[in-house]
Amino acid sequence: MASGVSNEKKTDDEQSSKENFICLCNPHLEKMKEDILYHFALGTGTHDFPALFGDVKFVCVGGSPSRMKSFIAYIAEELGLGSPGSDYPNICAGTDRYAMYKVGPVLSVSHGMGIPSISIMLHELIKLLHHAKCSNITIIRIGTSGGIGLEPGSVVITRQSVDATFKPQFEQVILGKTVIRSTDLDEQLAKELMQCSKEINQFNTVVGNTMCTLDFYEGQGRLDGAICLYNEEEKLQYLKEAYDAGVRNIEMESSVFAAMCNLSGVKAAVVCVTLLNRLEGDQISSSHDVLVEYQQRPQKLVGYFIKKRLAKV
Amino acid sequence: MASGVSNEKKTDDEQSSKENFICLCNPHLEKMKEDILYHFALGTGTHDFPALFGDVKFVCVGGSPSRMKSFIAYIAEELGLGSPGSDYPNICAGTDRYAMYKVGPVLSVSHGMGIPSISIMLHELIKLLHHAKCSNITIIRIGTSGGIGLEPGSVVITRQSVDATFKPQFEQVILGKTVIRSTDLDEQLAKELMQCSKEINQFNTVVGNTMCTLDFYEGQGRLDGAICLYNEEEKLQYLKEAYDAGVRNIEMESSVFAAMCNLSGVKAAVVCVTLLNRLEGDQISSSHDVLVEYQQRPQKLVGYFIKKRLAKV
Repeated sequence: MASGVSNEKKTDDEQSSKENFICLCNPHLEKMKEDILYHFALGTGTHDFPALFGDVKFVCVGGSPSRMKSFIAYIAEELGLGSPGSDYPNICAGTDRYAMYKVGPVLSVSHGMGIPSISIMLHELIKLLHHAKCSNITIIRIGTSGGIGLEPGSVVITRQSVDATFKPQFEQVILGKTVIRSTDLDEQLAKELMQCSKEINQFNTVVGNTMCTLDFYEGQGRLDGAICLYNEEEKLQYLKEAYDAGVRNIEMESSVFAAMCNLSGVKAAVVCVTLLNRLEGDQISSSHDVLVEYQQRPQKLVGYFIKKRLAKV
Repeated sequence: MASGVSNEKKTDDEQSSKENFICLCNPHLEKMKEDILYHFALGTGTHDFPALFGDVKFVCVGGSPSRMKSFIAYIAEELGLGSPGSDYPNICAGTDRYAMYKVGPVLSVSHGMGIPSISIMLHELIKLLHHAKCSNITIIRIGTSGGIGLEPGSVVITRQSVDATFKPQFEQVILGKTVIRSTDLDEQLAKELMQCSKEINQFNTVVGNTMCTLDFYEGQGRLDGAICLYNEEEKLQYLKEAYDAGVRNIEMESSVFAAMCNLSGVKAAVVCVTLLNRLEGDQISSSHDVLVEYQQRPQKLVGYFIKKRLAKV
């Protein structure tokens, strides 16, 4: 193990002693004349980051570009910052790797599917926020997930992100060696989001563990992929073990999201809606309209949270 | 290890004894009334797969949706199947997870970035080809990569896909247990592609090993991510070890691509252009126009290969 959890983590004292700027865990960046954020099609040599992004306080990230565009229109209206029907330009229009939108203090960024895809986005996002000299940032992933033992449409606020063996850690290979990082999320932020859900009182919300896998089919014990070499009984046993370990939903990005936000000293939360109950099936077969309504639930919850933080509720 | 390489692999005899249909390694699918390919927004209950896709012989996949759209326009013109300026509708327009285009026997599909993203796409693509009763399919990933010890713009045809410790294998966790799969690619197909490159004679092409990583920054030894806890010397040592193990380029999808095509009995190849020489730097700083021309090289090579196979050269 090249570097463990303990020596990478900032202490609470270090963090609270000053305004909470992004902690950049990379001494090499200081020496670079220009930083090209290739997958955003942005760069410090071509864009004025403090002018473009210096006022950002909330960053919401999610898989789908179109959903992150809907979210910015929704939050603009909620915060009284946009008129209905306004168009929000994609800040990353120079590439189709990610999409990024901004209104007032809120940035909305897509991350695609899976740990590698969100990891590239987060490296460049954290550098962007650092170059822009942002402080006191809250990042929330709003997404979809498979539920375990919950009614479809339930929202899960992640307590701990765990791997496919239910351990609260993110394992990655760096220079050929395995490194383990902590997947802690901000407890206080999770509580605040749960309180918001109680206040809006529109859908079932729980705080639970979220399992983060590297695959949607075999990695989540589905029987309906192109490859499946286990049976239904083995699958159900695995999902029940996950439930017993406190897992209430399964998605594909939370572990690296927690680990990277953690190392960068950014308060982070994960809020996902469950599209189905995996104890009852594998295929997502709800109607388009029902799924659209489900997908709006994390947006509603996080929209209310941002309004409340800005004293607009 | 739940299941090894040997008992999952088809023998050559089994494959050559009949027309080469997709081998579906999942007995559960036979029992399903309907199969919803959720991330394609297609389903056997709503779409006639044999009518839509039954004539497909070549599938080209790549990360970016817009590049896969350009490819279908390019191949249509090359094969004399489209008129200049024609628009090709996105078959997956009901979702923004992936984009899919078709002209004649060629299907062009985007897969996003990273192993999990391409893995979801491949599960649904392999099922699509199976439901469509396709036979004798050739799948080629055309992509971009970082080169090791090659001039930028060189094209690498993958001999073996190796992991971040240079082993020719893909490791994944299924029902909480680690499973290792072979990342063999079709030798004959790689030779055929190399021959095509010699015939068009427009850019440097090599056959070499491709390292497939789960991360673009720390996972590939870059010094310019948001997090970097190693120094330049350690980085260069790792990249040189990779070179000594026969690695000529690094990307993020080839291992699971090789493993899944292998298990499904589909002949597969990986053809990537190198955007930079990682022994000389980390940032992709070539001009937009130069990068666009580089990205067209795998398309040109694979376009020529398809024309030759169809006896149109």
